[in-house]
Amino acid sequence: MSYNNQQIILVQHPAGAPKPQDFKVTTTAVRDLEEDEILLRTEYISLDPYMRGRMTNAASYVPPFQIGSVIEGASISIIEESNSPDWNKGERVLGVTGWQNYSIVKGKHFDATDLFTGALYKIPNDVQSSYFLGVLGMTGFTAYHGLMNIGQPKAGETLVVSAATGAVGSIVGQLAKLKGCRVVGVAGGLQKCQYAIQELGFDACVDHNSKTFAADLKLACPNGVDIYFENVGGPVFWAVFPLFNNHARIPICGGISWYNDLMTLRQRGSNPRLLWKKFVALFRVFLRPDKSAVILMSAIAKRLNFHGFIIGDHFAQFPEFLNEMIPLVKSGKIKVKEDIIQGLDQAPEAFIGLLKGKNFGKLIVKV
Amino acid sequence: MSYNNQQIILVQHPAGAPKPQDFKVTTTAVRDLEEDEILLRTEYISLDPYMRGRMTNAASYVPPFQIGSVIEGASISIIEESNSPDWNKGERVLGVTGWQNYSIVKGKHFDATDLFTGALYKIPNDVQSSYFLGVLGMTGFTAYHGLMNIGQPKAGETLVVSAATGAVGSIVGQLAKLKGCRVVGVAGGLQKCQYAIQELGFDACVDHNSKTFAADLKLACPNGVDIYFENVGGPVFWAVFPLFNNHARIPICGGISWYNDLMTLRQRGSNPRLLWKKFVALFRVFLRPDKSAVILMSAIAKRLNFHGFIIGDHFAQFPEFLNEMIPLVKSGKIKVKEDIIQGLDQAPEAFIGLLKGKNFGKLIVKV
Repeated sequence: MSYNNQQIILVQHPAGAPKPQDFKVTTTAVRDLEEDEILLRTEYISLDPYMRGRMTNAASYVPPFQIGSVIEGASISIIEESNSPDWNKGERVLGVTGWQNYSIVKGKHFDATDLFTGALYKIPNDVQSSYFLGVLGMTGFTAYHGLMNIGQPKAGETLVVSAATGAVGSIVGQLAKLKGCRVVGVAGGLQKCQYAIQELGFDACVDHNSKTFAADLKLACPNGVDIYFENVGGPVFWAVFPLFNNHARIPICGGISWYNDLMTLRQRGSNPRLLWKKFVALFRVFLRPDKSAVILMSAIAKRLNFHGFIIGDHFAQFPEFLNEMIPLVKSGKIKVKEDIIQGLDQAPEAFIGLLKGKNFGKLIVKV
Repeated sequence: MSYNNQQIILVQHPAGAPKPQDFKVTTTAVRDLEEDEILLRTEYISLDPYMRGRMTNAASYVPPFQIGSVIEGASISIIEESNSPDWNKGERVLGVTGWQNYSIVKGKHFDATDLFTGALYKIPNDVQSSYFLGVLGMTGFTAYHGLMNIGQPKAGETLVVSAATGAVGSIVGQLAKLKGCRVVGVAGGLQKCQYAIQELGFDACVDHNSKTFAADLKLACPNGVDIYFENVGGPVFWAVFPLFNNHARIPICGGISWYNDLMTLRQRGSNPRLLWKKFVALFRVFLRPDKSAVILMSAIAKRLNFHGFIIGDHFAQFPEFLNEMIPLVKSGKIKVKEDIIQGLDQAPEAFIGLLKGKNFGKLIVKV
């Protein structure tokens, strides 16, 4: 049987915010399977902010995407054909394949140390499969690990989470509520804030676009802040900073407000457009008073613990996470909001919007 | 019996670096003891950088010194008279009394939660008493706690410690050597660096006054840096920063390079000299590119753990610390260097020099 494979290719490394011209759609034929290989048909692909970090030609903690290659990312696929005795046609798997209809992989089983290099995780049939890209996948696991292992929430403490209605933030806040914390979200716009309070059950949510944002946040945290789950960086970080209580914990998960600028600065190259974008990025990120001394000296005075983490280090905890999380999702104690876009060719535009905060809920493309 | 009590008084809050005119010497008579009180004759007083933080009128984690009051600090005293059944004349105690010949205190026993509000720790007779202001006191304990609990050294790892021959740094480095680490010191000047290598047994020590400092440090850390014990901040911090390995730990203990400037900025007041010093401090600390984004994003990419601490939170660990440390000191496995100044009236000048790195070893005044 022959298959046509639609793929999204990275045409050039974005300078500044990604643009539609940085991507293109191609179609190729799928080759025949070799021994032990399996053919996956993509059902859902996951769009995540960290992927911006791979769209540069500078080395980072995940290797950069190559020009002319398919964009790689987490996906749910259905096994279409199998030459491996370990895998059966029709099974659904979580893996890292990419922005394409089909992919051929060696059927390596997920072994709790590695999901990124071709390993597949077989997902159960009784849960909505797309959940394994969000609440039961990388983003939910990120929320769980960062909150539990670094945040160490205690009943009565105040937690602030930025990107509060996003894939990670919404789970952080709901888990912290279950632990008895006062949960204050930070989100962009009234609609997201209302959702955080009314649907997710947060105690408060503050709009970071408001002119009175810092004052609003202070008002929402009358007892200070014990845990700040950092997803965005920038002005939101500095609004939370003076509210820290002694012994506050700061799991650092992301800094989406800086991603485009920092990746542009890392980008190698000398074309005029890139140089101009670098200049703008330099101006935005660095041309302000240096707060290094404030961060380090406040860390002493308030005994703060800033701890960055990358979820890929912690796959050994993934089964424990699923054991705890699947019942919470099934019982409705953890609510899930997905922002599902139809059609592979919509992926670039959806990703561009993600970095601007346009999505509302975990952003997923149904292929 | 009547006693004349020489005291060092804070005359004004320093603007910028402390000057001799910020202090004065007075002499008063010691009043009679009331019931349960004991009279202490000061043997040694400890001069420590954190005290600069108390010489401002702005609130901090330790309350500020009041104008016209005796400078407070850790000391070793001998009980001269006792109206308390718990304490005997002639016993030596560690406490927080001050820059004066005599002090009257309630004889509250150290109870593992508090040393700062009048509690006394009775020190054994078979160890040099001044050691309880340094290697066996606050600074040694600071080194021990920060290294063991936050640094968590493992054999084969590389540790960098700034202010390497200082009261804290020298103990951090020697303890890390005992744990099997490669230890690289950072100190000011060739003499201190030679001492760190030849006497303290560090693997390398780099002079931060050298024009090739950052390159020298990189050369001294061929396998990167796993633990950075931060005592100084400023340019030393930024020289270590790019060398961090994944999962590096950064116990943040002090930032002496920033103390004078930050305390001057916190100082309230509007006299022209203070305003000028504030302007200079503002310029030195803040008028450079903002590195907040670099700190937070590197914390993610390299999974860094920055953890500030104050030793006063951890007195419960003090007996454990002494159990481990006293034998190491007695056996000579941990070497001790004291910089002992003779005469109470020399304390202000010695303290001024401490903030400039003029001392060599734990700075103590013999009264």
